[in-house]
Amino acid sequence: MTSTDARLHATCPLCGPAPALLWEDAHLRVIRVDNTPFPGYIRVIWRRHVAEMTDLSGVERDHLMQVVYRVETLQRRILQPDKINLASLGNQVPHLHWHLIPRWRADPCFPDAIWAPGRDDPATQSAWQRWAQDLAARLPALYDAIATALQNT
Amino acid sequence: MTSTDARLHATCPLCGPAPALLWEDAHLRVIRVDNTPFPGYIRVIWRRHVAEMTDLSGVERDHLMQVVYRVETLQRRILQPDKINLASLGNQVPHLHWHLIPRWRADPCFPDAIWAPGRDDPATQSAWQRWAQDLAARLPALYDAIATALQNT
Repeated sequence: MTSTDARLHATCPLCGPAPALLWEDAHLRVIRVDNTPFPGYIRVIWRRHVAEMTDLSGVERDHLMQVVYRVETLQRRILQPDKINLASLGNQVPHLHWHLIPRWRADPCFPDAIWAPGRDDPATQSAWQRWAQDLAARLPALYDAIATALQNT
Repeated sequence: MTSTDARLHATCPLCGPAPALLWEDAHLRVIRVDNTPFPGYIRVIWRRHVAEMTDLSGVERDHLMQVVYRVETLQRRILQPDKINLASLGNQVPHLHWHLIPRWRADPCFPDAIWAPGRDDPATQSAWQRWAQDLAARLPALYDAIATALQNT
């Protein structure tokens, strides 16, 4: 797979305008992931259509990861998750993007990755749904903090 | 979850000696992942028992990611995968480590994450097993290149 595959670029959903945008600069976009069972899930998407971290220059990689770390810091401070999951996969959409996913012991997939099959235990689901409602109330503060912190970088 | 949870530290499987070691320095270990259906799967494990990237100093984070990028570069050069997957999850073992996983369109989970359920299609499995044998023959070259490149950092 080359990073300049014109066919992929033309049809790439991450090359177009980003919905749910929290912050952007000339190089990347930070978006919230809505309609997910994982509150506070954020994606950081590189603007240029490249597939891998090693398609970027060293300066570009550092810039991207600094943004990832700043968002992780705020996810931890505001949501206090049990764990943060970071992943750059891109198998479905080979356009460089990072998943930043707060995780809780009660969430639907813990301790597995969010891409594993979820649990079907009704008791766990019920407890998680109450907890997720509480987390949802903190999301506006997270989103504001991300936009403010990155703007002041 | 605190990064200095003594109970976790005492029972942490990543705090002990690393099997399948390819390279190490004072801060981290690079190991090969054996018994995996994904040829060339490498883990980079931080020595100190911390859970998250943002538990590290900026200098430590940069050192860790430079090693990740060097390994990714060699995985791409020697194995020519269709994609690289990078992930720091740690839900099962909250001791900071990176998964570096070469992926191929024919592999048992593509285009899903490796943590998703695999395919059961016998034709695909047969084609992949032939391809995986060819890749296995290239693994000694990958492992040598990783050790040499990191030693010469």
